[in-house]
Amino acid sequence: MGDLTIWTLDWVPQGPRGFVRDLRLRWACEEAGLAYQVKTVPFGDRETNHLDHQPFGQVPYMSDGDLEIFESGACLLHLGRKSAHLLPREPSREAETIQWVVAALNSVEMVTVPWWFLEITGAAENGLTPWMEGRLNHMERVLGEREWLVGNRFTLADLLMADVLRVEKVRAFGTRPATENFLNRMTSRPAFQKALQDQLMHFASSDQA
Amino acid sequence: MGDLTIWTLDWVPQGPRGFVRDLRLRWACEEAGLAYQVKTVPFGDRETNHLDHQPFGQVPYMSDGDLEIFESGACLLHLGRKSAHLLPREPSREAETIQWVVAALNSVEMVTVPWWFLEITGAAENGLTPWMEGRLNHMERVLGEREWLVGNRFTLADLLMADVLRVEKVRAFGTRPATENFLNRMTSRPAFQKALQDQLMHFASSDQA
Repeated sequence: MGDLTIWTLDWVPQGPRGFVRDLRLRWACEEAGLAYQVKTVPFGDRETNHLDHQPFGQVPYMSDGDLEIFESGACLLHLGRKSAHLLPREPSREAETIQWVVAALNSVEMVTVPWWFLEITGAAENGLTPWMEGRLNHMERVLGEREWLVGNRFTLADLLMADVLRVEKVRAFGTRPATENFLNRMTSRPAFQKALQDQLMHFASSDQA
Repeated sequence: MGDLTIWTLDWVPQGPRGFVRDLRLRWACEEAGLAYQVKTVPFGDRETNHLDHQPFGQVPYMSDGDLEIFESGACLLHLGRKSAHLLPREPSREAETIQWVVAALNSVEMVTVPWWFLEITGAAENGLTPWMEGRLNHMERVLGEREWLVGNRFTLADLLMADVLRVEKVRAFGTRPATENFLNRMTSRPAFQKALQDQLMHFASSDQA
């Protein structure tokens, strides 16, 4: 085991299994061949018990030797520093990758997550629907023009955009063949499948504990 | 003039003036003493006319020689590469700064912007209010414990978090003295004031054109 540790919850209900964001970090480590271990904080006290590590009470956070980082997007950029497979070293390709990582976080997920939240909390009318539809259509156009978001190969940009867009309700909203193709390609990668199975097993084993 | 160009709209209505996100980039350049020029794309055709430069039809985007970058957060990280004043070079401080930049984009703004959007579009009941209140309270606790988000000095982390939290409706929601103090300190910085005045003058001059 290396010093790289991904911190997640010890248990979550069925709904979020397969979508807890430690998956992004597992996936990146698997793609890059980085050794890591997974440790947990209690689900029951999550609102208050790890605020010193994650000031919003969320997971994941990550430790790498003495360094501790929260925010899955920031953890991914840190992993990118450790592996050119994730984050190209050529300056313009690196900048493009960071640009699409931020786009996933702040142009796409900024609408899809609140939209999803309003859907599951049962708002009569979801006021974010037209805005989300616009963003998803923009991404459909982009993904219809290229196989990879940056250059001619997999980067963190593809990883994060895929993880943002694969959320079930978002994926089921409308028909976007290029996006669907992109998601099928990304989620069939062995590194994604390994990360997914490991997360599912992690939470399943806590049911039996 | 250097090669650094910030692209924004040629005109916007009164409401967003002082809050268009080119301000983040102007502010960062002013803090770092980086020379830059401002160029524009037409407000009227913004949905379609610059999709080759910004795939969601937004501003700002930035060019630096041959490199072109969209997403204000990614542009800020690029400016951070050009100036240690914005992004510390010591690895743990750099990682902390990136972490708070992502927190501003993906934990705070991911709730405040959709909340604000629902408020201005007149949703009867804003389903994002409890979630936003929680995030703002977490930030109030953090800002009550420290003067700067990273180390003992100004970084991109403070710049972006302040720009996210200073949005009028968000700032007026509830009472959070540490946050208010932080915003007063940040927005009284000469570099912020210069950036703000320049943006206001930019849009005012287009009224007369």
